[in-house]
Amino acid sequence: MGKSTFGTNFTVTTWGESHGKALGAVIDGCPAGLPLTEEDIQKYLDRRKPGQSRYTTARKEGDLAEILSGVFEGKTTGTPISIMVRNTDQRSRDYGNIAVSYRPGHADYTFDQKYGFRDYRGGGRSSGRETIGRTAAGAIACKILEELGIRFCTYTRSIGPVSIQEFHPEEISCNPFYMPDREASEKAGIYLEECMKQQDSAGGVIECRITGVPAGLGDPVFGKLDALLAQAVMSVGAVKAVEIGDGTSVASMKGSTDNDGFYSENGTISKRTNHAGGIMGGISDGSEIILRAYVKPTPSISQPQDTVTSSGENISLEIHGRHDPVIVPRAVVVVEAMCALTITDALFANMSARMDLIREFYRK
Amino acid sequence: MGKSTFGTNFTVTTWGESHGKALGAVIDGCPAGLPLTEEDIQKYLDRRKPGQSRYTTARKEGDLAEILSGVFEGKTTGTPISIMVRNTDQRSRDYGNIAVSYRPGHADYTFDQKYGFRDYRGGGRSSGRETIGRTAAGAIACKILEELGIRFCTYTRSIGPVSIQEFHPEEISCNPFYMPDREASEKAGIYLEECMKQQDSAGGVIECRITGVPAGLGDPVFGKLDALLAQAVMSVGAVKAVEIGDGTSVASMKGSTDNDGFYSENGTISKRTNHAGGIMGGISDGSEIILRAYVKPTPSISQPQDTVTSSGENISLEIHGRHDPVIVPRAVVVVEAMCALTITDALFANMSARMDLIREFYRK
Amino acid sequence: MGKSTFGTNFTVTTWGESHGKALGAVIDGCPAGLPLTEEDIQKYLDRRKPGQSRYTTARKEGDLAEILSGVFEGKTTGTPISIMVRNTDQRSRDYGNIAVSYRPGHADYTFDQKYGFRDYRGGGRSSGRETIGRTAAGAIACKILEELGIRFCTYTRSIGPVSIQEFHPEEISCNPFYMPDREASEKAGIYLEECMKQQDSAGGVIECRITGVPAGLGDPVFGKLDALLAQAVMSVGAVKAVEIGDGTSVASMKGSTDNDGFYSENGTISKRTNHAGGIMGGISDGSEIILRAYVKPTPSISQPQDTVTSSGENISLEIHGRHDPVIVPRAVVVVEAMCALTITDALFANMSARMDLIREFYRK
Amino acid sequence: MGKSTFGTNFTVTTWGESHGKALGAVIDGCPAGLPLTEEDIQKYLDRRKPGQSRYTTARKEGDLAEILSGVFEGKTTGTPISIMVRNTDQRSRDYGNIAVSYRPGHADYTFDQKYGFRDYRGGGRSSGRETIGRTAAGAIACKILEELGIRFCTYTRSIGPVSIQEFHPEEISCNPFYMPDREASEKAGIYLEECMKQQDSAGGVIECRITGVPAGLGDPVFGKLDALLAQAVMSVGAVKAVEIGDGTSVASMKGSTDNDGFYSENGTISKRTNHAGGIMGGISDGSEIILRAYVKPTPSISQPQDTVTSSGENISLEIHGRHDPVIVPRAVVVVEAMCALTITDALFANMSARMDLIREFYRK
Repeated sequence: MGKSTFGTNFTVTTWGESHGKALGAVIDGCPAGLPLTEEDIQKYLDRRKPGQSRYTTARKEGDLAEILSGVFEGKTTGTPISIMVRNTDQRSRDYGNIAVSYRPGHADYTFDQKYGFRDYRGGGRSSGRETIGRTAAGAIACKILEELGIRFCTYTRSIGPVSIQEFHPEEISCNPFYMPDREASEKAGIYLEECMKQQDSAGGVIECRITGVPAGLGDPVFGKLDALLAQAVMSVGAVKAVEIGDGTSVASMKGSTDNDGFYSENGTISKRTNHAGGIMGGISDGSEIILRAYVKPTPSISQPQDTVTSSGENISLEIHGRHDPVIVPRAVVVVEAMCALTITDALFANMSARMDLIREFYRK
Repeated sequence: MGKSTFGTNFTVTTWGESHGKALGAVIDGCPAGLPLTEEDIQKYLDRRKPGQSRYTTARKEGDLAEILSGVFEGKTTGTPISIMVRNTDQRSRDYGNIAVSYRPGHADYTFDQKYGFRDYRGGGRSSGRETIGRTAAGAIACKILEELGIRFCTYTRSIGPVSIQEFHPEEISCNPFYMPDREASEKAGIYLEECMKQQDSAGGVIECRITGVPAGLGDPVFGKLDALLAQAVMSVGAVKAVEIGDGTSVASMKGSTDNDGFYSENGTISKRTNHAGGIMGGISDGSEIILRAYVKPTPSISQPQDTVTSSGENISLEIHGRHDPVIVPRAVVVVEAMCALTITDALFANMSARMDLIREFYRK
Repeated sequence: MGKSTFGTNFTVTTWGESHGKALGAVIDGCPAGLPLTEEDIQKYLDRRKPGQSRYTTARKEGDLAEILSGVFEGKTTGTPISIMVRNTDQRSRDYGNIAVSYRPGHADYTFDQKYGFRDYRGGGRSSGRETIGRTAAGAIACKILEELGIRFCTYTRSIGPVSIQEFHPEEISCNPFYMPDREASEKAGIYLEECMKQQDSAGGVIECRITGVPAGLGDPVFGKLDALLAQAVMSVGAVKAVEIGDGTSVASMKGSTDNDGFYSENGTISKRTNHAGGIMGGISDGSEIILRAYVKPTPSISQPQDTVTSSGENISLEIHGRHDPVIVPRAVVVVEAMCALTITDALFANMSARMDLIREFYRK
Repeated sequence: MGKSTFGTNFTVTTWGESHGKALGAVIDGCPAGLPLTEEDIQKYLDRRKPGQSRYTTARKEGDLAEILSGVFEGKTTGTPISIMVRNTDQRSRDYGNIAVSYRPGHADYTFDQKYGFRDYRGGGRSSGRETIGRTAAGAIACKILEELGIRFCTYTRSIGPVSIQEFHPEEISCNPFYMPDREASEKAGIYLEECMKQQDSAGGVIECRITGVPAGLGDPVFGKLDALLAQAVMSVGAVKAVEIGDGTSVASMKGSTDNDGFYSENGTISKRTNHAGGIMGGISDGSEIILRAYVKPTPSISQPQDTVTSSGENISLEIHGRHDPVIVPRAVVVVEAMCALTITDALFANMSARMDLIREFYRK
């Protein structure tokens, strides 16, 4: 599998650097006959667009999605969908310092170690702009899943020390942090002001809830649905931990508490609790899938930091420019996109799990 | 990629059920010329063997590894290494209840939903015995990595509420819990006694530290080293969260604290801290890789639990038999194995990252 | 993908050397609920078994298939099926000459170049015995395909200069060469007698016809069904050319002759001819798939041949031992197996090609 | 692996339809530090450009390659290289007939069967224009291989009944058919004139010779180098047979003739003949790799053909428009590209074949 390709039957290959000509994605294995327009993609891209509040970078980007292939007369054709977003706001500037020094918390040093040199403009391939391709692909996955009754609710659970206390889904799109709790969002704003005054940055937690997933997705061993989700979400830059259901807290639970008992009512089998977060033995159980991603604070801060140049000189570095004091709100849609890609791929793989259903599919 | 296959260039395919004839693994892409014996494998299998203390299942298993192919005159040949472990302790017994009911916290229900029926004997493919194949493969990966100066230190960080307070690596193999802190291990023993009395079970945390990993492993986007490690470790049954470096705690940190500053001394560039856990932008930075897996309590408990039969009858189920009150100690080597497989695969993939090194390799 | 793994959704991983302890295959992605017994496998292995006529090696091998996993109560469980065949006739012998010299037409030299050394016993991994694993896997694929109405007819089309002139399918299993023409098979016997007298060997052509394949399998670009079949069949040792439909002869045809015209009768669209061999634009068209494999003469011959030792000494080598004067008849089932694996994999991949059918599958 | 992705470590993903906005390719796994310009790509695209002689379609296409990512300061960065070619000559026209009828020899019928509908404009994804992406990727592969001393010589071996009689490599680029024999090219011209007069088309044979390939590339079983080349080349539209070395003719040879004897001279081991075409047991042997692709006649011919509409009406169809009477000359560079992609991928995979070389690479 290509290093920039994700998935097996439904795949996305992304390309592009922060300050190159364009960024994009090729989505392959998308079934034919799905209605798809550039607006469908744009809605998702707009959720990660910067410049939407004072808490995100002032960099202005149109980030307009152009569909170059794979759609004919408004429907997908089954062939690869190529989506491109031109980089329009590439200010010509002097990268002097950054070109030769290793920014703490960034991939500068590791890129140089791996490749021998790097495109230092705006982080190159390791820029947050790389997520444009994922998000565009995720928009298509969500469109497929929506037709099957699978819905996502993804939001910011905490920023720095400020966690949500209540859950009002309708509030999510009403505040700049995508928090389902207005009061928490206001506190988060105050906290971020403080961070910015200190020339510092914050991290946070993103939560993704997925309903309508049929039981049976995922495989029992390496392809466990939670394992695939973990890779998907951990591959988003700045995510340092991923958990499913009760996650880290299961470690101190007892079996009698953690186990989700089953019960039957009117012929339907359900679980009384959902500590497992919708996945048991790596396979979806039909209940809500719950996942959390822990995001580190933006590494670009303008206060002076000790670091070195590529030639080994110890220096003090101040990073000025357009940086989000927190990337969590903009990463919400990216986490959702990665989960959607994973679920879609698992849905397709699952179609050949049973001989009786294959026989029925091919009508024999 | 096969659903039971892990890796790209260095792969393992596992097979086998808890109560089938045998379990095994096929390791492919192992370089030729590695000295390898059945003892090398056995050492790792013994670390996950049950019956080693009163805190693990009394099931007696030889778990003897037999190498069936891929080794000639004591060295690997470059062709697939097939390893088999016969199931020897398959007591003939009555699975009556378990065959038709869904054990809470197990994969019974999801298997039935996915496949239409299941091998109910001992959990079938979802049994902890499935990890035999991974562990055998991990032993080979560790042997390769050892030749390259890469070393693992994997241990139990906590059991239930009992966490280690000190770190004495030499202590790890001296207590039944593989804890690097004798006092903690004693407290863990007391805690587990309590659990067993209550017919209950416990979870815990496993930590894996990897030293000697060269900078440059992993890829910038979907193939981030931490993403691959997350999939690898989350694919171990009962793991519900994975974190790298400071993990979940980065979410409440500030950038100025989380960033690892670089410094140069005698021509060597190092980091002053290692909040990142050895991976930046998805690529290893040469410092210690640190990973933690959060393991849920053993779902098999003997106290009565509410559940249903496959025909939808509400019942109370007591699970008797041979079960570990905690699986953490036995999973330590499995987590290590999965990390070793991941690192080895990343090492091989990285060999074609630079044109100058390819040229040198092929001596042009 | 592992180097010894074939397929994407339905995969086989083979392992084992000619004179190792055993050979085998792990079949993954086999749907649950397929009735499967060791006899199903054995029937296919018996078709490639040596010692069935005076024209095949006298080596006696039981080649008994043992199913080690993935089958429960007579049906596949959806988890990996591990099949093993023990090597029972490993005469202890002196490989002296062969161990240090490069047999012309064999992989001895290239193995040494690639791996630095080799298992020289009976060809090691490059032995024809490697095909045991493929054949066992193919037996399972054929069982799946049979349930969907897909049938194979595979036979020897020619041996040396002797080609079939007539086609009587019922004759195929009645002569030692699996030729559908008794007279040709008798002439082939006479030709082979001559070869053996001259201490020489012969090649031939295998033809595989597949009926009942639904239209729509295969993908338009790299995953063309004919491309996948070509890889599958060319990966069988000794095959040096693969063709589909009219194959090589299309190069000198005109478009007006090569094109297969469509016609409609009673609401069914058919083709008047089948020059294309059942595949158009890489996708099956519902008509018979026709493939031919060109097999080189057995490289092991007992007449003296010029060659070198691994230390570079020029020598004359005579290869004595148990060798088939022609491998074509034994390779017939192997070609069928590889085609069956390819078709099965394509069948599963095709299930997610259309949004309307996905919707119907998941009943939304 | 994505359906439109080729390769494992060095991959290309192509996208685009004949009459869509653009076509392109994403090349991933390209090592960092390779000098690369748009001119490098353009040189290869120009070799497949139409409108270069009276024997190719009159469609005028700039086919200008634009590199959108993965190159910085004239060198590849190790991240995906996105290449796009805009479709500039999309005449607005009436596809009436073609939109609803199945052209014989084309993929129209199979696309409808697979996807339920199709982009009928100019063949959509099944157009020869799809090869633009492959060719662009092949240009990069060739650049890598050139640095390692690996050279390609690819040419037309025959058109219709006209085969080359002599081999003058310098002649290849001097005639419109890329034949290494001027006299044959003149005869081919006369033959094609005749075809065109008859409103008919011709096929032919392409030969690719690769020198400088180190011994050791390819794997012993499914990943045989010849198997991978067969898939690569058979995936080019219109190719119906692929052969390596003596190819189909080995079937009637005897072992004593087909075997290539080794000899040693001044410490170098060589083969006296090369019937095997440079690959033994699936692994390159260091001698010239020889491959031939058999290409069918252009299916689009203007004489009336019997066919059906998608609603099942029997009709007579005349295909007018811009079509090559033979596609062989334009496919020469495509076959070369596919071979180059395969060899490059095999080169990278081979780097981890031996423990001693891995140790040396990582300098331990």
